[in-house]
Amino acid sequence: MSASTPAAKRQKSSKDVPYHLIYWPEIPGRGEHIRLALEEAGADYTDTAHIEDGVKEVLSLIDPSHVGDDTNPPFLAPPMLRHGDFLINQTPNILLYLGPKLGLAPKPGDDDENGLYVINGLALTALDGLSNEVHDCHHPIASSLYYEDQKEESLKKSKDYIANRLPKFLGYFERVLKSKASGEGPWLYSGKLTYADLVLFQCVDGLKYMFPKALKKVQESGDYDRVFVLYDAVKERPNIKEYLASDRRQKYSMGIYRQYPELDMSD
Amino acid sequence: MSASTPAAKRQKSSKDVPYHLIYWPEIPGRGEHIRLALEEAGADYTDTAHIEDGVKEVLSLIDPSHVGDDTNPPFLAPPMLRHGDFLINQTPNILLYLGPKLGLAPKPGDDDENGLYVINGLALTALDGLSNEVHDCHHPIASSLYYEDQKEESLKKSKDYIANRLPKFLGYFERVLKSKASGEGPWLYSGKLTYADLVLFQCVDGLKYMFPKALKKVQESGDYDRVFVLYDAVKERPNIKEYLASDRRQKYSMGIYRQYPELDMSD
Repeated sequence: MSASTPAAKRQKSSKDVPYHLIYWPEIPGRGEHIRLALEEAGADYTDTAHIEDGVKEVLSLIDPSHVGDDTNPPFLAPPMLRHGDFLINQTPNILLYLGPKLGLAPKPGDDDENGLYVINGLALTALDGLSNEVHDCHHPIASSLYYEDQKEESLKKSKDYIANRLPKFLGYFERVLKSKASGEGPWLYSGKLTYADLVLFQCVDGLKYMFPKALKKVQESGDYDRVFVLYDAVKERPNIKEYLASDRRQKYSMGIYRQYPELDMSD
Repeated sequence: MSASTPAAKRQKSSKDVPYHLIYWPEIPGRGEHIRLALEEAGADYTDTAHIEDGVKEVLSLIDPSHVGDDTNPPFLAPPMLRHGDFLINQTPNILLYLGPKLGLAPKPGDDDENGLYVINGLALTALDGLSNEVHDCHHPIASSLYYEDQKEESLKKSKDYIANRLPKFLGYFERVLKSKASGEGPWLYSGKLTYADLVLFQCVDGLKYMFPKALKKVQESGDYDRVFVLYDAVKERPNIKEYLASDRRQKYSMGIYRQYPELDMSD
């Protein structure tokens, strides 16, 4: 990765300008979905997590005093991606933008151009049920309050999540992996690796960190074998394997996936 | 609207096949965002909410025994849209598919083709903060429990929502409307009506139903005048005006936006 500054002038659909990921340092968080797509594709990118004072760029762009520019409106939250002079935010939106450019989804005009919507739908569903809802397990009342100030509610929410929501969403992806539309091999759609697979991998990886006992139990149940085969298959992709072992991979800490043992299943 | 069945064979990018919305009857819900786009564009569409036993189609498609078909994976939840033999789900994904076809977003190849991502980002942010989080105000612990069984937590969540989240998101859209990128006139992006405007309208409309006192107060504050100008401008669009007065518009009841007076601001 180079630390070069993206070009200042808008470059329409440029393939030569490096991508610049703007996200909080020191958590994988939602930014991790973007990193995995860039890493799998071997794309040239910079990342505020690895730039000194990179957090200042995150903060300046989401400050209420920031009013955007002639073509880009202001944003509320990271991750954000800069590509030439185009700025984009919202995790599934950035993936949608990157997917066809990185070979992780069909392009407009491809034979299966509607496949992009299938992949986007799968990514949105994984993010809804296996990422956003997981964040609410430790912040069910207010994101502005400490966990300790909503711990009782978190215990209730997590209990329901593990009992009802986790099997619902894992069961859904197992069904998708069984469907004819998934094609041959371990992937969710059309027999090819897409960014939806990377999203599902990262969600399962985060859940394994946050709820180790619950995930061990669902894995041992055998009801979601295809989901775990996909998980392993992503982990063994050469670029992903190298990335996960590198210091570019952020460690889990106080982001979406947090290890509060009291929220996990009891023995 | 005709009640004709969509063609059985996949039609790539067809403009002649009517759209078929598959959503719960008797609530506006997430399906309403799709209806508003179709209505604004004067599109030919059918709607399970107006077909006898239409709910059976919703239920059959999300039943765990449904495994999709050769090209479409199974889905977890409505809204879903059928167009020819293409099936698509997830609200922002359906809007992304429809937007360019209905003239409510730029197409690939247009001068401002990246505008589609701007619009998608705005729609995702409105749905996150002004729809999904609002549902959690009456179901903060578990969507499978009755409201009455999570009422104490709902009171806390709604209080935080009205105090912190509502002004955060309305303030954000006010900033977007002030930005140069919004262009002239009442719309969020590029001086043109897009589906993001329709999404924001529907969110504000639902919030006015659910939290009438809180919405009156934020409107009277004058801090979000542009948001309410946009709201009124959408409401006065000829097709939307006719639609809102018709029986095609579902009444609010037990969907995302619910009127529990105890969750609203006190006097």
